[in-house]
Amino acid sequence: MLHVLTPEEVYALIRESFNTLENKEAVPLSESCGRVLSGPVLSGGDEPPFNRSTVDGYAVKASDTFGASESLPAILEMAGQIYMGEPARDPLPEDACIRIPTGGAVPEGANAIAMQEFTEDFEDGTIGITKPVSPGENMIFKGDDMKEGDVILPAGKRLTPKDIGALASLGISDVTVQTPLTVGIISTGDELVPESEVPGPGQIRDINSQMLGALCQSEGCRVHLCGIVKDDLDLLTDALKKALAQCDIIILSGGSSVGEKDNSVKAITRLGELLFHGVAIRPGKPTLLGKADGKPVFGLPGHPQAAFFTAKLFVCAMIDRLSGYKRETIRIPATLSRSVSANDGRELYLPVTLKEENGILTAIPLHGKSGLIATLTRADGYICIERNREGIKAGDAVNVYLF
Amino acid sequence: MLHVLTPEEVYALIRESFNTLENKEAVPLSESCGRVLSGPVLSGGDEPPFNRSTVDGYAVKASDTFGASESLPAILEMAGQIYMGEPARDPLPEDACIRIPTGGAVPEGANAIAMQEFTEDFEDGTIGITKPVSPGENMIFKGDDMKEGDVILPAGKRLTPKDIGALASLGISDVTVQTPLTVGIISTGDELVPESEVPGPGQIRDINSQMLGALCQSEGCRVHLCGIVKDDLDLLTDALKKALAQCDIIILSGGSSVGEKDNSVKAITRLGELLFHGVAIRPGKPTLLGKADGKPVFGLPGHPQAAFFTAKLFVCAMIDRLSGYKRETIRIPATLSRSVSANDGRELYLPVTLKEENGILTAIPLHGKSGLIATLTRADGYICIERNREGIKAGDAVNVYLF
Repeated sequence: MLHVLTPEEVYALIRESFNTLENKEAVPLSESCGRVLSGPVLSGGDEPPFNRSTVDGYAVKASDTFGASESLPAILEMAGQIYMGEPARDPLPEDACIRIPTGGAVPEGANAIAMQEFTEDFEDGTIGITKPVSPGENMIFKGDDMKEGDVILPAGKRLTPKDIGALASLGISDVTVQTPLTVGIISTGDELVPESEVPGPGQIRDINSQMLGALCQSEGCRVHLCGIVKDDLDLLTDALKKALAQCDIIILSGGSSVGEKDNSVKAITRLGELLFHGVAIRPGKPTLLGKADGKPVFGLPGHPQAAFFTAKLFVCAMIDRLSGYKRETIRIPATLSRSVSANDGRELYLPVTLKEENGILTAIPLHGKSGLIATLTRADGYICIERNREGIKAGDAVNVYLF
Repeated sequence: MLHVLTPEEVYALIRESFNTLENKEAVPLSESCGRVLSGPVLSGGDEPPFNRSTVDGYAVKASDTFGASESLPAILEMAGQIYMGEPARDPLPEDACIRIPTGGAVPEGANAIAMQEFTEDFEDGTIGITKPVSPGENMIFKGDDMKEGDVILPAGKRLTPKDIGALASLGISDVTVQTPLTVGIISTGDELVPESEVPGPGQIRDINSQMLGALCQSEGCRVHLCGIVKDDLDLLTDALKKALAQCDIIILSGGSSVGEKDNSVKAITRLGELLFHGVAIRPGKPTLLGKADGKPVFGLPGHPQAAFFTAKLFVCAMIDRLSGYKRETIRIPATLSRSVSANDGRELYLPVTLKEENGILTAIPLHGKSGLIATLTRADGYICIERNREGIKAGDAVNVYLF
């Protein structure tokens, strides 16, 4: 029997046994989306750097417009015009307004913008304001967006298009990000043939190499697919040695159950040490992790669903650790559509589809046994049923982790 | 004043005025993650192609194990061994079991697998089964995952790692996907300087080129950043003409409000036709769409938040239309943390952060005015308040669209 760890113990072990790699590189802003920030990004100055109008209209002193209406507009002298891309040279005189475009620099003395729609040009050098504005209306103040020294983006953030916008606003045209990790994937098993071949009797296609490769790619890693290795300790040890020379993380897929042909543990202990073998989850119990040349070597179960869940949980946690990525996971509360039993003392991970109707979100567990990969394609996310809980009843609240 | 459309009218106009492009290409499975399928993928045969064990143990006839217990095991003759990767040659004899590894082909006559943990090898040619198994237990039947001709993945699906696994299981090593769209982005405005430059008085950095470029990249598009064009009709027309020659979609950022220097509409009507100008949403009212050389040309507001939302809504809808991508959006029910007012007859799009505590999901509206890009980086998603609704009260239910 395996001495099994809980998922929390596995996460702690990953943190204790491995550190974030120091490898970073500068990339142009236009190639930085999806990359992980190496350090925090601070604001270098106020943004916007001047008070800015958010509408086309007239810069005014708000109090000059109080009580204005269509029948009784506030009459202000037209004291000039601000052009886009030019500084606001002169302050706003008393009882006057200055024409300003969207994005224009608000002149000193003005504290609101009257929208063009609520003004009337009397064409005698005066403008009628037909609706009052409150102080600050239709403008953004200097530093409203960010002040000098503010942490705009923390270290370890994976850059989104919104973040790219914030970086551009800071004048950052090259970003220092973590170098992508390289993940090597070795599939093991006498029964496996490459996905391009037609399996003979008793054979199956290697699903996991491609699936785990795509998962690691979508986590920002480079992937080496090292092919299929037969259940032979020397062959596997050789393949692992080669992969260790090229990769930051190695995944052995298949061959990690207690079966007689299990060579993953032996290959790892030949080249390094075994850190754990067995996690109290379902699917995925026979997951293992070792360390060789200072690098993590996973042994994942051969069944695609089990391989997918264990990679999602533990390989991703390792990617986060080595790359310094601070993952933010939002759990989505939903209602379970049908009862699910779970009583074998392991956390149960169950793929679900989500359906929203009239503001009620329902999580529908997907039927299927470990290994059914077509089932998994329909899943929006998964739920986790704690160890020792006897199951969850239809209508009960669950938390869904989105894929 | 603009004649404004509702978002639904814009979506309908996009569907009426543009068709999905026929451009497709075959890519290796290992490079297909994130790409959009050109046609449906059908199952070419049963998966798994044979009855398969999901555990290490013994293939048995379930009824032979009924009533078995640790004190009174069911005694079965050990009739042989299935090896991984080999067919199950001989059927299961009466009152017998056959040793089988995880993933092994279940022999004819067997309808369940007794897990090794619940067996005992008496080493006299018999095996004791110490726990009954029900029919089908610990095995997957031929075709359980998919049957010949099943639609496994529909046309227009964006491929995820799980989908890649399903494709590998079907023996598909090259996938026919839509050719990526190319999006050209032209920023317009006399006040804009490239993000790498220090803005002078009255100037601001061009945020939108990089932000919109990253957004289109994350939607699977190639991006041409065409730079900043001054508010000059001839210059803009030239830039637009060049972009039309190279791109499938063109975005003009800025210059689409009713301001005096608005040249987007004029440039579009010089080279093609204007389809609409103005959408009843906030932020983003002065959005416009034209068609030139049969290609869509958007004019998006210059304010980064408005540009982001309108791109998220309308440019993404156009990308979906041209690429044939069938987007699936899950709305997440949540509780609003504080009251929000909205009463200007336009749909209000409001960025929110999400917080989950004890199974309650709270949506916290982010303070900020149109244009505040640092605010937007903290948003997990957004809510939409319908036109003519006076606002939403703290504690009310809202639906959140995740970014």
